[in-house]
Amino acid sequence: MSERPVLIAGRWRPARATAKSFQAIDPVTGLTLPPLFPISSWNDVEEALASGSEAAASLASFPPGRIADGLDFAARGLLERADELVRTAARETALPAESRLRASELPRTVGQLHQAAAAARDGSWRRPTIDSRLNIRSRLEPLGGPVFVLGPNNFPLAFNSASGGDFAAALAAGNPVLAKAHPSHPETTRLLSETVFEALRQAGLPDGSFQMLYHIRPEDGLRLVADPRLGATAFTGSRAAGLRLKAAADAAGKPIFLEMSGLNPVFLLPSVLRQRAEELAGELFASCSLGSGQFCTKPGLVAFIGDDGSARFQAAAAAAFRSEEPGFLLGPAVLEGLRKAVERMIAAGAEILAGGRALPSPGFRFENTLLRITARAFLNHPAEFQSEAFGTASILVAAADADELEAAAEAIEGTLAASIYSESGPEDEPLYARIAPRLRVRSGRLLDDKMPTGLAVVPSMVHGGPFPASGHPGFTAVGLPAAMTRFAALRAYDNVRPSHLPPDLQDGNPDGRMRFIDGEWTRAAIESH
Amino acid sequence: MSERPVLIAGRWRPARATAKSFQAIDPVTGLTLPPLFPISSWNDVEEALASGSEAAASLASFPPGRIADGLDFAARGLLERADELVRTAARETALPAESRLRASELPRTVGQLHQAAAAARDGSWRRPTIDSRLNIRSRLEPLGGPVFVLGPNNFPLAFNSASGGDFAAALAAGNPVLAKAHPSHPETTRLLSETVFEALRQAGLPDGSFQMLYHIRPEDGLRLVADPRLGATAFTGSRAAGLRLKAAADAAGKPIFLEMSGLNPVFLLPSVLRQRAEELAGELFASCSLGSGQFCTKPGLVAFIGDDGSARFQAAAAAAFRSEEPGFLLGPAVLEGLRKAVERMIAAGAEILAGGRALPSPGFRFENTLLRITARAFLNHPAEFQSEAFGTASILVAAADADELEAAAEAIEGTLAASIYSESGPEDEPLYARIAPRLRVRSGRLLDDKMPTGLAVVPSMVHGGPFPASGHPGFTAVGLPAAMTRFAALRAYDNVRPSHLPPDLQDGNPDGRMRFIDGEWTRAAIESH
Repeated sequence: MSERPVLIAGRWRPARATAKSFQAIDPVTGLTLPPLFPISSWNDVEEALASGSEAAASLASFPPGRIADGLDFAARGLLERADELVRTAARETALPAESRLRASELPRTVGQLHQAAAAARDGSWRRPTIDSRLNIRSRLEPLGGPVFVLGPNNFPLAFNSASGGDFAAALAAGNPVLAKAHPSHPETTRLLSETVFEALRQAGLPDGSFQMLYHIRPEDGLRLVADPRLGATAFTGSRAAGLRLKAAADAAGKPIFLEMSGLNPVFLLPSVLRQRAEELAGELFASCSLGSGQFCTKPGLVAFIGDDGSARFQAAAAAAFRSEEPGFLLGPAVLEGLRKAVERMIAAGAEILAGGRALPSPGFRFENTLLRITARAFLNHPAEFQSEAFGTASILVAAADADELEAAAEAIEGTLAASIYSESGPEDEPLYARIAPRLRVRSGRLLDDKMPTGLAVVPSMVHGGPFPASGHPGFTAVGLPAAMTRFAALRAYDNVRPSHLPPDLQDGNPDGRMRFIDGEWTRAAIESH
Repeated sequence: MSERPVLIAGRWRPARATAKSFQAIDPVTGLTLPPLFPISSWNDVEEALASGSEAAASLASFPPGRIADGLDFAARGLLERADELVRTAARETALPAESRLRASELPRTVGQLHQAAAAARDGSWRRPTIDSRLNIRSRLEPLGGPVFVLGPNNFPLAFNSASGGDFAAALAAGNPVLAKAHPSHPETTRLLSETVFEALRQAGLPDGSFQMLYHIRPEDGLRLVADPRLGATAFTGSRAAGLRLKAAADAAGKPIFLEMSGLNPVFLLPSVLRQRAEELAGELFASCSLGSGQFCTKPGLVAFIGDDGSARFQAAAAAAFRSEEPGFLLGPAVLEGLRKAVERMIAAGAEILAGGRALPSPGFRFENTLLRITARAFLNHPAEFQSEAFGTASILVAAADADELEAAAEAIEGTLAASIYSESGPEDEPLYARIAPRLRVRSGRLLDDKMPTGLAVVPSMVHGGPFPASGHPGFTAVGLPAAMTRFAALRAYDNVRPSHLPPDLQDGNPDGRMRFIDGEWTRAAIESH
């Protein structure tokens, strides 16, 4: 059987591949799926960079409405191919076809594309800023080169490098996208890429606006993220892979945006824990087991002060974790990562309250696992308990008192989200005031009385946080238009003649943009003097 | 004579110094100035980090108006000490006391502080964003640790780590500042630090909101920028020093913002060159010799197509460079750097049209130097001609035709600014359309018909650009409030109870902030449902 073609410079063609090819694995059977996918050589990357650079130059002065059309067409195209997409993604990932992929992830992906289109049309993400007296004007602009997008394994549609959040944000900001498929769902990525490519072609976007490779060698990845022609890299995945790419990009001074997972600790304060112990245990399990525990925002640690309520909570949580069959994991690497993470925590002193072992083949499954450690032991080796493990696993951290709970909050590494459950009474409020500021500076999103897994795609969303959750605390990977600003350069026009200015910086404001003029936000034109 | 005290944790005290001390040098005489300054050991840094962290926690929920008061008080304090500041800075830098320091740089510094105060009071830099139906809210917030500021040698007041642009931006965004003096003007920095410290104390800001060390060992600098307690680093200076700090900060995932100089090329198109050859030569020399050529935005390269106009331009420029005595350079390292840069360009094939040699001591002076190279030779080794050299020196690049001129634009490295002079006629406009997009993506600021040295402190200003001009193309070091966003983390509040929200994210909007609510910018409160 021949290898699937790659999409480079406006056409599908056989890869200039390395000797090896790869296949996806069905997580339910553990068997490889038929299609063969190429691992591209640097020749493919080189050609994609050249075409992407040309496209970048062309898109820089492209009407935003046309790019928006392409995003809208892509969204419609995904809906038209929904059956095939859902079926293929389900087979490659073992995620529930109907309840998850069709009912939740596909609509989210479609919605993101439409939101990105709307943001591109609106143009306020560029923050056009004018000081009229001095004739200095600035705005955010596309970077000048293609954005290399590496999507994760766990959201085959919504975070896919060919249609997901980074794709939409980079393109809406006027940058070409060079996508690399995640090797766990290459056929899904091929289908998405076909759809996206046709949509952008229909909107009249230049060749090279979207290109896709299934896989490249690690050394070529490091070379690509450092290439001067590249605009930036957007990576969602494991910390180890992200840090390697980050080092290569940083050394070359190329922007790279990383979403490298999170611990997403949940702190349960004493009063709420006593009043709602069993209910919170149920909420924890529901959040922890979403997508077989393979969410970047899975609650990986639950901290509380050990007392009556906590004993009931622990018993109920352990029962919940034991009550359901575990779902399938995305692949053998995920299973292995989970096994190692659990082993590591046990070696560091954690006890098992539920689960702890892999299930026999076929397929990749691990028992729903709940661990427990005292805060004192946690504080001795806090890093041992904070490596992300995809899967339905979490560790309870029992503090002896408020001081230990506060110390635990202080020991949390940079994370995507952090939750605090509390009652608005005299017992919990003073403790909230001690815990919240510590979790606040360590997380991109702070939640009250809510598990961290829900992630609405709205302008106020922050899916980011301090290192190592992300590479830069000032940005978000989810939420438009904010996510687009990652893929933009801030540029001023100083004394530039009217005919040389882009439309949104011209006095007349032909498209009615919201602009910051002489210190005030306004949609008004500048009166000629 | 005893060493000057450092400012740590709210008091001036003797440094816990390394064995060595240092003195500033009078650039006019080449002799050391009397005061002795300590090189702090890590013990000083450690104490400053601890105090700065405490201050960061306190400032995070501090009323922005109080921080703004501190900035305003500092501005007033500088004016009250103007005579002493101007005298001291002039002695340490040889910059003209009246025309430069008193008439230009001090007012700019004072204006920046007041602008930063106004931006802190206004609060719109935080971009409060609310999705009311889902109760998700986000804004930019201070980083959570002190900002380490390293100022450059060339603006002893306006870019000083104790009162300059980065100081003002970091503090206005709610971060404590840990300043390191530039060793070429430590006494100026001491005076500024006294003034700033008193101003912040008067406004009631916590100890550790501003701290200052004169110098630290290079290895301690690398350790400091990577310290987990640090919020971020802001560096203005040489590329070599900046890249060392960047590597250390990047490896630890700590934000670092760098302004590492620029070539600031000027492209003169044929028609304008023929019509205004002599006038442009005068503009070039005036811009190039500002501050003895020690501006980050000095035009270091001038490109054009060699023809009749260019011969007149070259002759007039050479005459202008020869017509004036060179000013004093900031110190021996600047002189040495300039000598090496000129030697390097000559070795790579440049010819000398004016100057080219150091002047005999006393003091640090180098002849106003104009070099020339063909575009063809430039294109063979473009990097050889793009290392920044402080001093009145520039290189003319003569292209044979439009294609060579375009290729020269394509070979320009990331830079702060780029200028194009053109006539709006049929000869220059098509060439402008070829050159401008290339310079656009390579520079933070594009100018028409204007030399790059002027740098207004207005919201639309961009003092940044692609690497290696800066470390990140999305930010600016000058221009408020944009420069403040470097020192901020984007943070969401998801389902957080009203009493736990910061004021500008509360429904009632007590301070009347401009906010992005449900997709619209407004100062209105959210009606209760």
